[in-house]
Amino acid sequence: MLEGLKEIVWKANLDLVRFGLVTLTFGNASGRDRKSGLVAIKPSGVSYEKMEPSDIVLLDLSGKTVEGELRPSSDAPTHLELYRAFPEIGGIAHTHSECAAMFAQAGREIPCLGTTHADIFHGPVPVTRRLRRAEVLKEYEKNTGKVIAERFGKLNPREIPGVLVAGHGPFTWGETVAEAVENSLLLEKIARMALGTLLLQPSRGVFPAYLLEKHFRRKHGPDAYYGQKKGIKK
Amino acid sequence: MLEGLKEIVWKANLDLVRFGLVTLTFGNASGRDRKSGLVAIKPSGVSYEKMEPSDIVLLDLSGKTVEGELRPSSDAPTHLELYRAFPEIGGIAHTHSECAAMFAQAGREIPCLGTTHADIFHGPVPVTRRLRRAEVLKEYEKNTGKVIAERFGKLNPREIPGVLVAGHGPFTWGETVAEAVENSLLLEKIARMALGTLLLQPSRGVFPAYLLEKHFRRKHGPDAYYGQKKGIKK
Amino acid sequence: MLEGLKEIVWKANLDLVRFGLVTLTFGNASGRDRKSGLVAIKPSGVSYEKMEPSDIVLLDLSGKTVEGELRPSSDAPTHLELYRAFPEIGGIAHTHSECAAMFAQAGREIPCLGTTHADIFHGPVPVTRRLRRAEVLKEYEKNTGKVIAERFGKLNPREIPGVLVAGHGPFTWGETVAEAVENSLLLEKIARMALGTLLLQPSRGVFPAYLLEKHFRRKHGPDAYYGQKKGIKK
Amino acid sequence: MLEGLKEIVWKANLDLVRFGLVTLTFGNASGRDRKSGLVAIKPSGVSYEKMEPSDIVLLDLSGKTVEGELRPSSDAPTHLELYRAFPEIGGIAHTHSECAAMFAQAGREIPCLGTTHADIFHGPVPVTRRLRRAEVLKEYEKNTGKVIAERFGKLNPREIPGVLVAGHGPFTWGETVAEAVENSLLLEKIARMALGTLLLQPSRGVFPAYLLEKHFRRKHGPDAYYGQKKGIKK
Repeated sequence: MLEGLKEIVWKANLDLVRFGLVTLTFGNASGRDRKSGLVAIKPSGVSYEKMEPSDIVLLDLSGKTVEGELRPSSDAPTHLELYRAFPEIGGIAHTHSECAAMFAQAGREIPCLGTTHADIFHGPVPVTRRLRRAEVLKEYEKNTGKVIAERFGKLNPREIPGVLVAGHGPFTWGETVAEAVENSLLLEKIARMALGTLLLQPSRGVFPAYLLEKHFRRKHGPDAYYGQKKGIKK
Repeated sequence: MLEGLKEIVWKANLDLVRFGLVTLTFGNASGRDRKSGLVAIKPSGVSYEKMEPSDIVLLDLSGKTVEGELRPSSDAPTHLELYRAFPEIGGIAHTHSECAAMFAQAGREIPCLGTTHADIFHGPVPVTRRLRRAEVLKEYEKNTGKVIAERFGKLNPREIPGVLVAGHGPFTWGETVAEAVENSLLLEKIARMALGTLLLQPSRGVFPAYLLEKHFRRKHGPDAYYGQKKGIKK
Repeated sequence: MLEGLKEIVWKANLDLVRFGLVTLTFGNASGRDRKSGLVAIKPSGVSYEKMEPSDIVLLDLSGKTVEGELRPSSDAPTHLELYRAFPEIGGIAHTHSECAAMFAQAGREIPCLGTTHADIFHGPVPVTRRLRRAEVLKEYEKNTGKVIAERFGKLNPREIPGVLVAGHGPFTWGETVAEAVENSLLLEKIARMALGTLLLQPSRGVFPAYLLEKHFRRKHGPDAYYGQKKGIKK
Repeated sequence: MLEGLKEIVWKANLDLVRFGLVTLTFGNASGRDRKSGLVAIKPSGVSYEKMEPSDIVLLDLSGKTVEGELRPSSDAPTHLELYRAFPEIGGIAHTHSECAAMFAQAGREIPCLGTTHADIFHGPVPVTRRLRRAEVLKEYEKNTGKVIAERFGKLNPREIPGVLVAGHGPFTWGETVAEAVENSLLLEKIARMALGTLLLQPSRGVFPAYLLEKHFRRKHGPDAYYGQKKGIKK
């Protein structure tokens, strides 16, 4: 059932390792089937080297396992909460990639300091509030998804395709799981560049709002002109 | 004798190199046979490329060579002291991995700043006091083990699976030598993330005690729910 | 048409990835044919893995596509502006390499702190002013080239083979596209070394002007004595 | 002539690249034949990929080419000066490795902050004074060797196997060229660890003089007990 999606999700999880974003089993990626609404996700604590496409677990949005013999990722309730909150997204990735995690651990958003950032995020990469004691004690992973959704409020998840969970690390998403993984890679790069930039104490006003707007719209939305036309080699 | 353990210890030493934790011969790993109490350890100053499983040296807990033609690692007395002090552990790894060594050299413990840390260490990564002159002049390596044991006092080595020796570098341990090596890898990652987080000047209270408790217990002890049930693919 | 140049430009673009200077499609390189004046450039948003020499687009200096079925790099107008402003150059590379981008994002030039820098750049690596709103809204990429040319004023592009665009990242150039790519690699190295040097708070006067002059002239101009004589193995 | 030495020097130069210490052609290594006193050194500006053992140039101590069709490294006069000043050494390596160069560019010695350092250097890694104008204008490379020798004064080059040239980068040496290359690798590691340690603001007295003495003597001199006995697998 949904063998194609399971293979894509399996490959996306391996890409997290290949891109250097995941150490041991610290990360996971999932994809959603638009028709059935089912979610395919990495099994919990299984080594990437041994994982096969058939190990990918299929869940419905309530968290019930529809197919698969292994336990789903312990972060599955976070993924499901995000799929419920953001109907427009089709894939999610979670890592503990080092520089993004530094900002998450510091409880600081990543300000937009340059065009690399503006190409992907239409504004700062937000950081959630920390979870309260009661939110941690019960349904911790689900509540992690809820504080992300709460943080977004009026933010558009299509234009801000990721978040830092305070004291934890990044979640990213996209139309597909492959896009979610790419966004994890770019978020890590943005974070590393921001760390160095902040150490250099940037002069004010180097990156004005109109440049953010320009760069984001070069790649996203109806006036995008980066890349090739649809159907052309990519 | 104990060929299986020797092969496991040999492989664990190679993993230290593969994970980028060891430069030249700066590191070593050992494993303990539960039945006989014997310890299998890397020979001293032998290049990783040329080392074979049969080069692994077998020692009894007093430090006497039971099997092997090469000298054991010069750090063997530290390993043996730790096996005596912590009967519950079955493997030890020692490296000069860069970021963990930075904290050790600075004489600073690594505070728990995020979930990656809390997944492995149930509290800060402790740092020993520096060794006194007399402790260095005589039985230096044995005394290194003693100051680690002294530092632990009421700490539980199963819940704090590693330490920073002031002015030196990290030692980690686990139920097996493979787990000890994994903990070396994760300690290095935790240290790198902590360094960056501290440079970003984290806001207070991002990582509360209840979140530390939650994350550690997700993976360790009777209520752990991370990963697969015993006997299932890992 | 110009198949040789297209192959060279294709290879130069792959080298940007091989040297670790480009993530996903964040970078591009071009070369100019001296006789015809045509410019060969990477297509926009095409993955490096799938790109073939025949995908390289040929443009005239006005930006008209002379050969090629794909859209040229969205940064092509910047390249063309630079070829117009600096008739002496034959190749250009653009990346978002991390440390060079940190300085660009901070709006700070890279001061000459050592001989590695002086071997390549005859003075600080300059940073442009930020683009004004109107320059961003209309002909943004062309204006990016114009602010680079404006910044150069009396600077000699043969002696300063690169620049940081404020809030964006580096452009480098050379007699050939291969030289432009090498300069991107060295600029990233210079930037990384400068970041660390500045964190160490260098003592004043470590690198005097006469040492800059000496090192640059060892490798460039009529009195150069580094390397082999022309026609000898290189 | 001296084909064996040429092959060893050729391999040592390739190791500099393999260890990540050299970018493009920024580095060189040489070895001295004890009997003849001749020095085998890398040719200038030749790419590491194309270099063959037969390209290695043989010089006498005055700098005259005894064998070889290519120009020797432009840094050859520095090497020769060091061989004259330090009769006990048999090999030299020079790189622009990043972290060692950061300290050189900052004009700061590397203090001994831990056992990794103490295993190799019996004290801080010294930094030279900067060269004066006249020393740069005439016989620059030879004078680079002279300021190193001047800096050593009472220091013992067997116990301090390397130096930072202010505003430039590191030179290391050893009994053989292979040892010189290993010392370049370890110096880079020591420098990277020192940079991070200094950012963490180390508490005073973490690394006392008696620990420096102990660690250095574990590996060097008549009382060394690290590694295997002579003639045993290494």
